[in-house]
Amino acid sequence: MPLQNDYFSAYHNLKLTRDDKGVLVAEFNSNGGPCVMTAQSHTEFVEAFYRISQDRANKIVILTGAGGFITDVDWSSFGDVTDPGVWSQVHDEGAQALENIANIRVPVIAAIEGRAHVHSDYALLASVIVAAEGATFQDVAHFGAGVAPGDGIFTTWSYRAGAGRAEAFLLNPQPLKARTAYEWGVVAEVVPNGKALSRAHELAELYLKAPEVTRRNTRIHFIQPLKERIVREVGYGLSLEGASSAALMKSMQAKSQPVARKGKSA
Amino acid sequence: MPLQNDYFSAYHNLKLTRDDKGVLVAEFNSNGGPCVMTAQSHTEFVEAFYRISQDRANKIVILTGAGGFITDVDWSSFGDVTDPGVWSQVHDEGAQALENIANIRVPVIAAIEGRAHVHSDYALLASVIVAAEGATFQDVAHFGAGVAPGDGIFTTWSYRAGAGRAEAFLLNPQPLKARTAYEWGVVAEVVPNGKALSRAHELAELYLKAPEVTRRNTRIHFIQPLKERIVREVGYGLSLEGASSAALMKSMQAKSQPVARKGKSA
Amino acid sequence: MPLQNDYFSAYHNLKLTRDDKGVLVAEFNSNGGPCVMTAQSHTEFVEAFYRISQDRANKIVILTGAGGFITDVDWSSFGDVTDPGVWSQVHDEGAQALENIANIRVPVIAAIEGRAHVHSDYALLASVIVAAEGATFQDVAHFGAGVAPGDGIFTTWSYRAGAGRAEAFLLNPQPLKARTAYEWGVVAEVVPNGKALSRAHELAELYLKAPEVTRRNTRIHFIQPLKERIVREVGYGLSLEGASSAALMKSMQAKSQPVARKGKSA
Amino acid sequence: MPLQNDYFSAYHNLKLTRDDKGVLVAEFNSNGGPCVMTAQSHTEFVEAFYRISQDRANKIVILTGAGGFITDVDWSSFGDVTDPGVWSQVHDEGAQALENIANIRVPVIAAIEGRAHVHSDYALLASVIVAAEGATFQDVAHFGAGVAPGDGIFTTWSYRAGAGRAEAFLLNPQPLKARTAYEWGVVAEVVPNGKALSRAHELAELYLKAPEVTRRNTRIHFIQPLKERIVREVGYGLSLEGASSAALMKSMQAKSQPVARKGKSA
Amino acid sequence: MPLQNDYFSAYHNLKLTRDDKGVLVAEFNSNGGPCVMTAQSHTEFVEAFYRISQDRANKIVILTGAGGFITDVDWSSFGDVTDPGVWSQVHDEGAQALENIANIRVPVIAAIEGRAHVHSDYALLASVIVAAEGATFQDVAHFGAGVAPGDGIFTTWSYRAGAGRAEAFLLNPQPLKARTAYEWGVVAEVVPNGKALSRAHELAELYLKAPEVTRRNTRIHFIQPLKERIVREVGYGLSLEGASSAALMKSMQAKSQPVARKGKSA
Amino acid sequence: MPLQNDYFSAYHNLKLTRDDKGVLVAEFNSNGGPCVMTAQSHTEFVEAFYRISQDRANKIVILTGAGGFITDVDWSSFGDVTDPGVWSQVHDEGAQALENIANIRVPVIAAIEGRAHVHSDYALLASVIVAAEGATFQDVAHFGAGVAPGDGIFTTWSYRAGAGRAEAFLLNPQPLKARTAYEWGVVAEVVPNGKALSRAHELAELYLKAPEVTRRNTRIHFIQPLKERIVREVGYGLSLEGASSAALMKSMQAKSQPVARKGKSA
Repeated sequence: MPLQNDYFSAYHNLKLTRDDKGVLVAEFNSNGGPCVMTAQSHTEFVEAFYRISQDRANKIVILTGAGGFITDVDWSSFGDVTDPGVWSQVHDEGAQALENIANIRVPVIAAIEGRAHVHSDYALLASVIVAAEGATFQDVAHFGAGVAPGDGIFTTWSYRAGAGRAEAFLLNPQPLKARTAYEWGVVAEVVPNGKALSRAHELAELYLKAPEVTRRNTRIHFIQPLKERIVREVGYGLSLEGASSAALMKSMQAKSQPVARKGKSA
Repeated sequence: MPLQNDYFSAYHNLKLTRDDKGVLVAEFNSNGGPCVMTAQSHTEFVEAFYRISQDRANKIVILTGAGGFITDVDWSSFGDVTDPGVWSQVHDEGAQALENIANIRVPVIAAIEGRAHVHSDYALLASVIVAAEGATFQDVAHFGAGVAPGDGIFTTWSYRAGAGRAEAFLLNPQPLKARTAYEWGVVAEVVPNGKALSRAHELAELYLKAPEVTRRNTRIHFIQPLKERIVREVGYGLSLEGASSAALMKSMQAKSQPVARKGKSA
Repeated sequence: MPLQNDYFSAYHNLKLTRDDKGVLVAEFNSNGGPCVMTAQSHTEFVEAFYRISQDRANKIVILTGAGGFITDVDWSSFGDVTDPGVWSQVHDEGAQALENIANIRVPVIAAIEGRAHVHSDYALLASVIVAAEGATFQDVAHFGAGVAPGDGIFTTWSYRAGAGRAEAFLLNPQPLKARTAYEWGVVAEVVPNGKALSRAHELAELYLKAPEVTRRNTRIHFIQPLKERIVREVGYGLSLEGASSAALMKSMQAKSQPVARKGKSA
Repeated sequence: MPLQNDYFSAYHNLKLTRDDKGVLVAEFNSNGGPCVMTAQSHTEFVEAFYRISQDRANKIVILTGAGGFITDVDWSSFGDVTDPGVWSQVHDEGAQALENIANIRVPVIAAIEGRAHVHSDYALLASVIVAAEGATFQDVAHFGAGVAPGDGIFTTWSYRAGAGRAEAFLLNPQPLKARTAYEWGVVAEVVPNGKALSRAHELAELYLKAPEVTRRNTRIHFIQPLKERIVREVGYGLSLEGASSAALMKSMQAKSQPVARKGKSA
Repeated sequence: MPLQNDYFSAYHNLKLTRDDKGVLVAEFNSNGGPCVMTAQSHTEFVEAFYRISQDRANKIVILTGAGGFITDVDWSSFGDVTDPGVWSQVHDEGAQALENIANIRVPVIAAIEGRAHVHSDYALLASVIVAAEGATFQDVAHFGAGVAPGDGIFTTWSYRAGAGRAEAFLLNPQPLKARTAYEWGVVAEVVPNGKALSRAHELAELYLKAPEVTRRNTRIHFIQPLKERIVREVGYGLSLEGASSAALMKSMQAKSQPVARKGKSA
Repeated sequence: MPLQNDYFSAYHNLKLTRDDKGVLVAEFNSNGGPCVMTAQSHTEFVEAFYRISQDRANKIVILTGAGGFITDVDWSSFGDVTDPGVWSQVHDEGAQALENIANIRVPVIAAIEGRAHVHSDYALLASVIVAAEGATFQDVAHFGAGVAPGDGIFTTWSYRAGAGRAEAFLLNPQPLKARTAYEWGVVAEVVPNGKALSRAHELAELYLKAPEVTRRNTRIHFIQPLKERIVREVGYGLSLEGASSAALMKSMQAKSQPVARKGKSA
């Protein structure tokens, strides 16, 4: 599989490095700084997560970000979301990306510093989340921006924080402190600012003491209920989100706003 | 659909008012005071929730109560629950009522003051619960009264609070403070006494900023997992509750208690 | 059914006593002291839980332990777990044991003192857990020992504590205090040391006030979602655990360690 | 419930008559002749099926049609299906209609003469289908017309005929003879032309020999697995269908076809 | 486990014999002739199926009957089914019996001669059914006798024959020929009268060529989807059946029929 | 995505060609002749199906084979399946391959000539199967070879043919004629020998008349229930199969057979 070797440098918004023990660090970023989600990164994350999942040389995967996790979204990059053909791709990629993370069959750790304000569901697909004191979780991409939160953000938060908390969190988005996310059972450990990644590496060391089959099978067992929920819920959620996006665009156009959402939310 | 217009004043125990933005307030009450559940209200709530769910002029729905949420139940009004024909109706209505609330396809907010001691599952079908400091949750209608809590009270509390808490809460019913329900993830916001409804209106204002399709689709997405659980669990639960009710009546009759439960519990 | 009468004294590691009200106390023990799980006890617990579940003279079941709940495991007693025939029995018994507890159709209370460090999933199949202040929960039998935690420990902890907490708890096992388990919604009541069993008896008294059908049907209703998860998840989990155990043994043999795990973990 | 009495004459496309034994015949029709589905009938069927389901005076329900079952669809009546607000209503009604039929808690018999070429899923929600020799099943409303068959037609055919047959039947729609539908296990009885309704009445007589609770509970038990599938699958299906409809309209508009689908399919 | 050895002769209505290869033949019978189901046999079958499932010396299990499979039911033996305590036991045993057969973790073959007119669901839990030409399937215990068919008969027939066939078969019970059951996919092989058991033995021989773990794991894999349906559906089904039974008794008593169902159906 | 362009010639056992309308033909083969499954092809099919699924230039996918579909398996190529590390890869790839086919979000047609004797589950993931008169289906890779059929062969056959037929078909594998598979609802059309692929192309032409979103969404809707079953069942199935393979190897080694299965089955 020569393709396995060359994916490390293939992605603009995901920097991949792996140490000699097989600990892969996947760092979301935009030009080395805080990552802003675009249609292009949406597409390449699907591919990246798949490659990561299939490469058996990855023994542990750490998801993190440069100066935040994913901090914002550039909705305009997605083009005309009232076009069913455009949204069809968003739908397919959105579901596939989450399934691909769920199919990473080694322990996944998320190390969060700063803002996890877009697609924190990627982090919630990890088995363990380490967050710095100053880290915050929010969903700036959906309800506050006029769009239904159907892309997995509800499924994962509902799964890990409970449905009541998830619904309120998504309907009235406010930055959620790491400490509160810890009390909700979402974050496993809160560490001083700047220490999330190093703590993730410590946990990786610990997990590496178990045999490889044990590590893989533990992940497979742990992720199975969430994977089933993703498979069952996220496609529909994305369809509902697509219709809401189109409705938003139409209502904006009706108000003579020639450029709908100006590139960035919030 | 002329029927849509005339349901507002059709119910004895549910007062319906809607403002010009489409925010519907549904207030449980008995003669304007704290609502006591009866067989008659059980029947009319099924109808009311359906009408509410189907009327697309409702943009947001707030469930609340007069001087409490639903505060007590008059079991004697249900008649001879050892008669399978009598319980058949309770079973069918009980399942249908919850499905009808789940099918309210706009954001639902519960505003709780005082006692939510009967059918708090109606409130837990809301996406967001605002509770006053002095509000309490309890289940006076079931185990403490000798009946299996099968009508959705377990399904909803288990879904929102976790199964362990729900089971203990229902087996040994004690008034649960709003603050504790908040810590359990059931209540989204605790407000000063008397402020629950006004805070619910504030949230409604906020939600109304999103397009209608976004609001509807968000609700549809959020309620789906709970709706599926209700469809799967509550019919059986009600059958189990029916058998337990009949057993209770038989044991009471055996003890020569001519009037079983004297109208009110606790 | 004369078989029903003679199972009380049939088990080496489960002491059964029942009072005249039908409250059965099942006490895990090894020679009267803290219980160490062995292959032999694994087999007999399957049988014991089934007998308990089928005997309608049991009105309430209390699970407890002598000087702890189950405190350790003797992996060596399971023999050569690289032999598929050996693991086949572990798989079948492991799934059957949990189904049998789930099929105890009367209220089940767990009374925990000291260490619940092995198969705390048995306790989490109770509707209510009463734990002494000094009680601790841990999983010494799996990931820390190099084995995938697939035997129900994840399914039950995920169900009652939430998936995020369960995954972290099992990947990096540390003693979890009763108080923390209470905050997680797993433990219903924390009592002074030495008082868990007596409090369980008080709750049993309380539950006995409800008619028998009510008690049975309440248990049936409460356990159904967890029973479904067990049926769906634990067989696969045990298969994954079996493969991981075999991998561990192979890696140990490769390191010339003639005796794999020396009888006891940690 | 005075509302119960006056729904019999409320619908333009569903004629309701009930004999003194409580056998309700619901006959699809357009002006007394073969029924052509429109947006208006879509809306009123939701209401009609709900009223039928809630009226306990209905003891048996027979679904049939005048000169066919439902024979065609007038897609243009649905308006601009590229408008998310328009499709939102189709989505909500489409899911609700099927749930409402599934909630008819008495035996439902379908009596098919002639063409069941649109929404034969309504018929497949019956427990028993009696079809005349000359009856045919087809789906003229979806794939052949360029739209994804997501409104329950796949869910019901897959459930009753098997997935392989359903997929081929819907991708390449041809009239399916009653006899073939019988061989597939969809039709329970094939009768001479003109005799479907009278045979349905004979079956109704037979079923009426059982007590009412038996009749209701049998229906509840039989429909439960299909009801669960409908709740899980049809909302998503309708969203997928909506996107496909919008895509179709866009492609037609792109080809300068000013009137999209000219009122009728085929 | 000395208990394992002594269950062979423990049951009045199930004769157990095992050859030296581990092929267990379980023959339903009443005094050596056609088996009539009673409350007593209902209870002992639960126990018998459990023992069979747990005894690893059983390598293949053949279910058959003497002069038929189970041919009739003596409803009167179940006592006063309007008593919730009486039905509670029927409910618990009914669900447990099917789970116990599903937990027989070796290949199960049903060999049917004559009438399988009661609890043919036991046979449908086999992986393979061999039926003699003259064998017939029917359900004389439920709808025709005025009772809802909720005890697994619908779940198993729906699973193996398709829901449409199952519903019609159970609502209007007629003897179903072996050949028709073969066309429906329920019966795997039709053999000349008197040859069902010998053909089952031939298949047993064939299956014994595979290793034991292969045989066990194949059964586990094959039965899993049906086991899940049983766990999900049959408890509720039995509750619905219980209410229908009570309704039947009440209606009979109302008609001054002092003895309800006179011992036998049909 | 330059990677999309270069996968056409990447696979030894899957020949990919696409016409200008986007109809992709994927032909299983070994050196241009009948395809024999090996560990190497197992690995590359995972990759191939993923690339096919992600390439939106594929509008229709036809699965076929050279001189058969997949005709045999070379078990020895999988190496030492008693090694948990070896089987871990088989498990992960086996589940991933089926998920990847299920995620081909355009209509999939299988065109079968000759023997589909290994991994016919790949064909059963198509929406429509066209088979030549002389085509046969069988499973030579599992039970007859001593291994549990857990890799999706049961899940797919059970889903499309019914569980009873699937279980018998897999326990006593015989070549199943195309005509019988048609009667079972598995094959949609039987054509003269040599005509399967051309008929598949005709169907592709037909499907291409629908808009692309319609085609994609129809596939998504149709495959969802089977995809959910695969996600739920196949991982466990593969674990059970792995244990059975190891048991087979051990039993062969015990009989002093130095080379286990000599390259080919049957």
